[in-house]
Amino acid sequence: MKNKAQIVIKRPEGLPEKETWKLVENEVPELKSGEFLVENHYISLDPAMRGWLNNSRSYIPPVELNEVMRSGSVGKVIQTQGETKFKTGDFVSGWGGVQQYSVTEGEGYFKVDPDQAPLTQYIGTLGMPGMTAYFGILEVGKLKPDDVVLVSGAAGAVGSIVGQIAKLKGATVIGIAGGKEKCEYITNELGFDGAIDYKNESVFKGIKAHCPKGIDVYFDNVGGDILDNAMIFLRRNARIVICGAISQYNNTAVQGPKNYMTLLVNRASMQGMVVFDYAHKYGEAIADLATWLKEGKLKSKEDVYEGIENFYDTFLRLFNGDKMGKLVLKVKE
Amino acid sequence: MKNKAQIVIKRPEGLPEKETWKLVENEVPELKSGEFLVENHYISLDPAMRGWLNNSRSYIPPVELNEVMRSGSVGKVIQTQGETKFKTGDFVSGWGGVQQYSVTEGEGYFKVDPDQAPLTQYIGTLGMPGMTAYFGILEVGKLKPDDVVLVSGAAGAVGSIVGQIAKLKGATVIGIAGGKEKCEYITNELGFDGAIDYKNESVFKGIKAHCPKGIDVYFDNVGGDILDNAMIFLRRNARIVICGAISQYNNTAVQGPKNYMTLLVNRASMQGMVVFDYAHKYGEAIADLATWLKEGKLKSKEDVYEGIENFYDTFLRLFNGDKMGKLVLKVKE
Repeated sequence: MKNKAQIVIKRPEGLPEKETWKLVENEVPELKSGEFLVENHYISLDPAMRGWLNNSRSYIPPVELNEVMRSGSVGKVIQTQGETKFKTGDFVSGWGGVQQYSVTEGEGYFKVDPDQAPLTQYIGTLGMPGMTAYFGILEVGKLKPDDVVLVSGAAGAVGSIVGQIAKLKGATVIGIAGGKEKCEYITNELGFDGAIDYKNESVFKGIKAHCPKGIDVYFDNVGGDILDNAMIFLRRNARIVICGAISQYNNTAVQGPKNYMTLLVNRASMQGMVVFDYAHKYGEAIADLATWLKEGKLKSKEDVYEGIENFYDTFLRLFNGDKMGKLVLKVKE
Repeated sequence: MKNKAQIVIKRPEGLPEKETWKLVENEVPELKSGEFLVENHYISLDPAMRGWLNNSRSYIPPVELNEVMRSGSVGKVIQTQGETKFKTGDFVSGWGGVQQYSVTEGEGYFKVDPDQAPLTQYIGTLGMPGMTAYFGILEVGKLKPDDVVLVSGAAGAVGSIVGQIAKLKGATVIGIAGGKEKCEYITNELGFDGAIDYKNESVFKGIKAHCPKGIDVYFDNVGGDILDNAMIFLRRNARIVICGAISQYNNTAVQGPKNYMTLLVNRASMQGMVVFDYAHKYGEAIADLATWLKEGKLKSKEDVYEGIENFYDTFLRLFNGDKMGKLVLKVKE
């Protein structure tokens, strides 16, 4: 049996070029005792992947050269050897990487139920992006019901869930997204109180108009000028959640937030988060999110592209904004 | 009776010029009922004064043009009218401003005892700088006994107390200061575990050498490159206390911390503080600080210059670093 995989062959500088990866086809290896074989159906594409390509100290080691590109995944167990964590026929989600088949002992894998939710949701709203949104807004952001929440990347996998959770908890929520379609999506379909189209209007004026009393929580997925604008409107004791900085990931010189002294003026805080720290509580989050999804209180959108050979073009959509909701690549042929 | 006062006549851009203020001499006005007259002995000179000159939203309104320059002060009540908060002969500290005599009903004033501590300490270690240090490191910095603490402006009014409190609580403390004299002062006299002379050595290499395991708390008085270097060495769950950014106060374009994504990698936080928020607990802090001073566990240094006409030259010492400990101007002739 053959396995197609995208391996990393070059460390990128700036926006990764196509030559960062190479599609290879190899024989699926023999299973050792305790191992099982997963047929990957869907691969998760996340902005964090860009960081994993850098050879620098971070919250997770970089992907080594000639290794399969790291990614979340969801698929089906099709073969086992000896005593294994899951059995043939189980659907599982884990770190399968950008490949069609993964051999694993199951570390970091968990079982999912395709009857309870579409498989793609397990790498989206019920996966890492959902966990990030849940713990990011509730624990790091310390959301209170009367808060005014601003979220960037608001039509994305994390931002769209952050905003909806905040709405569910009673907050006023304004989203920043690129383009009319995304802005209409978050207000009309997701129930955000307002949207700012950073591609077509002034973010400063938008925040000023939508948040006349300022912001209690800014959930930042983008960094750069948008972070700087948000800082201008912090209220007393505001919290900034640093979840990502997609506008900066491909820059060799990062733009620091020049308005950070508003943290002092407003006794505000800016805190970073890594979702893995909350692994012991994922169950609680999944239970809440699944309930809200079933009750129709939470909407989850996956933007699915197809073909492992199209990994690079799909990956670029993370950075050019040409996607809606959670970006997913179907790799099952 | 005549009163000499430094009034603000021009809003500065960048480093204030001498023409920002004008020394005027006026008649001390008649006291109204409830008012008292303070003969100011010492004026407090603080980096925050630079911010009060800007006509922008902050934690306190700007000083208006043609008003007496705002400052902390300590002096003696020499006259009262009707029922007053303090009586003639009392020593008091408050917001007297850069002038020889102040007329006030006593809002924000408190009584001090010249037999318990030198008057200058009441605008230093037992005043705002001491309060800032105490609540900054203990409450905002959430100091723990086994923390590694890095503090900038370490020979200054706030930094020197921050470091000593952290040492008293069991932490390892490294200070950043400008010049050999200051570095020797904080290690030899104040008991810091190490010093980095930012004027004569690489701050990056200094932190690397002195904090091989990284930093748990960075207490920032300076901003700029030093903040960026500190961010490189954050440990998991580190806290950055934003107390000031003296390197940036005279810049028209503030340098944002370009390494802020280390907050994410290390789940670290950066929080701003304003000392006034702790006013209800100043008593507790003063009791602790006074006890430590008496027991010789805490050292307080004031650098005293003389003459209200020398306000501008003394003020400049805040920014050129030519002072040690708390900068004070004696205005009593």
